[in-house]
Amino acid sequence: MTKAKKIPIFLLRVIALGATVSATIVMATSHDSAQVLNMTFQAKYTNSPTFKYFVVVNAIASAYSLIVLFLPSKNFLWRFMLVLDLIMTLMLVSSISAALGVAQVGKKGNSHAGWLPICGQVPKFCDRVTGALIAGFVAAIIYFLLLLYSLYSSQCH
Amino acid sequence: MTKAKKIPIFLLRVIALGATVSATIVMATSHDSAQVLNMTFQAKYTNSPTFKYFVVVNAIASAYSLIVLFLPSKNFLWRFMLVLDLIMTLMLVSSISAALGVAQVGKKGNSHAGWLPICGQVPKFCDRVTGALIAGFVAAIIYFLLLLYSLYSSQCH
Repeated sequence: MTKAKKIPIFLLRVIALGATVSATIVMATSHDSAQVLNMTFQAKYTNSPTFKYFVVVNAIASAYSLIVLFLPSKNFLWRFMLVLDLIMTLMLVSSISAALGVAQVGKKGNSHAGWLPICGQVPKFCDRVTGALIAGFVAAIIYFLLLLYSLYSSQCH
Repeated sequence: MTKAKKIPIFLLRVIALGATVSATIVMATSHDSAQVLNMTFQAKYTNSPTFKYFVVVNAIASAYSLIVLFLPSKNFLWRFMLVLDLIMTLMLVSSISAALGVAQVGKKGNSHAGWLPICGQVPKFCDRVTGALIAGFVAAIIYFLLLLYSLYSSQCH
């Protein structure tokens, strides 16, 4: 790989690191409270196993994105790294999709199941979850681009 | 690719086709009804945008899995097929994760958000959704194995 090609890859990985770290922090620190029928309702990510999964996956992806910055881009581990990139992309897509599915219920509710939307009560929480989802989505897109680049740049027969 | 290697790949693709078709049909035909407070509550996949997304993705994956069976396994399109396999895997993982996130709320509810579990009222619906999720999961695992195989079998530098 020439140096001219290495720089954009390195930059993409730095952006991916920033996006996964942002997603983790924004989701982990999201909280809001509301008074409903004289009861205080605390909204935080630990209320939902799906949001916990999102934080764990993004924390793992942050650690991986950081470590990979210090590895040489074309070494004997490259095939192993390609598989790790693939697994990381799948985990990110999985965590974002799951969180988005639950966030959609939080935003719109589900009248059939009798689930009321909660974003009216805890708008700050919903805004932060939205922010975390966007950051996670950016990370997933970048990992997908890195995968496409790896697949196309390798000279395969 | 030798013929000895082609057969297991073909078999995996046939199983993937069976799994995606099963996931689509089982989810699309899942329904149950319950009487709650003198009101009939109909549970079906169209009640949830996430379950609709699951059906659409699995239908697309079924069509793709079918078409790909009739393509030669090592042709000039192989790199394009590898990218399509990747996209299909990501879509399957996304749809399963989203549906699983919402199904978890259906099964356990969320006391913090005041969402009651619904599986006690509509057990048949929940059983079928579980079945569809398992079939979708099998399809995603097979696509992941096909991807790993493609990455390892191609002689890349």
